[in-house]
Amino acid sequence: MNIFNKRVNELRSLMSEAGLDAILTPSVNNVFYYTGLKMLSGDFAFTLISKSGNVDLFVSPLVNYLSLKTAKVHPTTDTKDLKKLLEKHKKIGFDEFGFSVHKFKSLKTKSVRFFPAGDLMRRPREIKDQSEINTIKKAIKITESSLKSVRPAGKTEFQLAEEVECGFRKRGALNAFETIVSAGKRSSFVHYKPQNKKIHKNDVVLVDSGAKFNEYCADITRMFCSKPDKKQKIILEDVLEIQKALIDYIREGVNMKNINNYYKKLLDKKRYQMLHSFGHGLGLGVHEGPFGGELKSGMIITVEPGIYIKGFGGCRIEDDILVKKDKSQTLSSASRSYMNF
Amino acid sequence: MNIFNKRVNELRSLMSEAGLDAILTPSVNNVFYYTGLKMLSGDFAFTLISKSGNVDLFVSPLVNYLSLKTAKVHPTTDTKDLKKLLEKHKKIGFDEFGFSVHKFKSLKTKSVRFFPAGDLMRRPREIKDQSEINTIKKAIKITESSLKSVRPAGKTEFQLAEEVECGFRKRGALNAFETIVSAGKRSSFVHYKPQNKKIHKNDVVLVDSGAKFNEYCADITRMFCSKPDKKQKIILEDVLEIQKALIDYIREGVNMKNINNYYKKLLDKKRYQMLHSFGHGLGLGVHEGPFGGELKSGMIITVEPGIYIKGFGGCRIEDDILVKKDKSQTLSSASRSYMNF
Repeated sequence: MNIFNKRVNELRSLMSEAGLDAILTPSVNNVFYYTGLKMLSGDFAFTLISKSGNVDLFVSPLVNYLSLKTAKVHPTTDTKDLKKLLEKHKKIGFDEFGFSVHKFKSLKTKSVRFFPAGDLMRRPREIKDQSEINTIKKAIKITESSLKSVRPAGKTEFQLAEEVECGFRKRGALNAFETIVSAGKRSSFVHYKPQNKKIHKNDVVLVDSGAKFNEYCADITRMFCSKPDKKQKIILEDVLEIQKALIDYIREGVNMKNINNYYKKLLDKKRYQMLHSFGHGLGLGVHEGPFGGELKSGMIITVEPGIYIKGFGGCRIEDDILVKKDKSQTLSSASRSYMNF
Repeated sequence: MNIFNKRVNELRSLMSEAGLDAILTPSVNNVFYYTGLKMLSGDFAFTLISKSGNVDLFVSPLVNYLSLKTAKVHPTTDTKDLKKLLEKHKKIGFDEFGFSVHKFKSLKTKSVRFFPAGDLMRRPREIKDQSEINTIKKAIKITESSLKSVRPAGKTEFQLAEEVECGFRKRGALNAFETIVSAGKRSSFVHYKPQNKKIHKNDVVLVDSGAKFNEYCADITRMFCSKPDKKQKIILEDVLEIQKALIDYIREGVNMKNINNYYKKLLDKKRYQMLHSFGHGLGLGVHEGPFGGELKSGMIITVEPGIYIKGFGGCRIEDDILVKKDKSQTLSSASRSYMNF
């Protein structure tokens, strides 16, 4: 049995528990996960997975679908045939995250009852198999090689982001998201679009970036600092200490809510504000499941504590973690090497 | 009056015609167009534009919104306050293209009637002002400089795409979309993800790419061919001829439907199949309005005729055109220079 059959079977047993006759999704990552079709974002495609029988893929004839053996391909942008197929079912679960209101309206038919099932169809993606783990490891390796080869001094934030992302491309990957590069005081923004602003010699520089290799994402944040002053040093050390505590705490069975509570406690103890959660699931999407609940062996999550002080600067360190039975395994390598102290 | 006030006023007169009390959008391009806020994709933001009074922007506190003077900023990810504001209105137009079913459900309140108004709020974007035209010209210039500096021979499709896109980055831009590079027979796919496949010496290579500069997109397709054979030459010349005829036909007042009819006629005459429309609007989005109807002075559209022969190969030439009163102006430069014949 190939990997796509296996995934479809897993989804089918979830569908059966939920009493659904079929599942419908237009989202690039779900289509890839269940059929293997690689698309450009914006390409027209719908995957319909019924309780039994075929996986049906309605896809624009402009897309290169020829090698696809995992689904019955309908090369069309006319939704007439898809609607006919939908009408054979009574209860269809649809991807409320992937469907725009407009797209969903164009497919809705009166004879079918539609139920939001985005969470259900994303659930199998939460636990990674060995081949997925290997691909994410490769994306992480590419991210780290690229990060290690760049030099911030004298560049603008935009130029440093360019260097990091072209490094991904040279190593056979794309970027999973728009790289954040924020220097000096600007590192106190959690999200930030790099600007044409010079990085000064003693600036602390936050770089949040990730390669996308064979559709799978890495997500890593590193601090570059050649000469941190006393206050910066304290913040950097505090973040590293908090991250270590979090990673030590993570293993199968721990609830994500408890990790966030623990993260808040660690920040509180040092009188820092909590501006975001401890991390998130990682895979085909840069933010994907698990979105809560107990961690399971085979999940990959990021751990990214951050301290942000308005008008002064910030620090975030982010690593990618594989959850195991009795511990967690850090897939990325030590971040301390970026800091010259 | 600044440019954002001007745009909001234009939208308000459309709202008044449509009998709407307010407009609500979460989409990155619409938020930027009406407020100037630059976001990372995936950032939480909603813009609410009421008939009169403030433009309200609900945005994640993680985003760098500090310099924004065009809207009343509410730094929050809690939708409670937004919902309260929505409830002050009776009829709200919402962006059915930008809202996922999930997001829309989270904001819907019983006391308000919601109407799809995505087209309405995109309409002011169709006509570009001089500063937008200049920015798009710059994006086009960057795209062309990068395309002119690359050499396909000996590279893989993926490597050539890398070279093109890193060229954008080096010139201060991002890429507007994932570059298509398809060599030899594979150029017969209209949409195609570049692969790790070698480009052979005499391959015809299709490159469809565009830089994104200051949020505005270019979209250009060029054919690289050092030694086309007789049949390839005929196809290339035919596409160039068809493109010239289309560009000559385009001016203010011409209906987009008629351009497509004319395009079909030109292809029919030479017995080629029509696989896609003649082109599309271009601006903050790579595919944006006008989506139909009569062209107006100040619109920017692409003209991209293509001929695709399965098992043999294809050809597409795409240029970006500014619609004027009595003619059209090609903003990109001659594509023939890429072809050595």
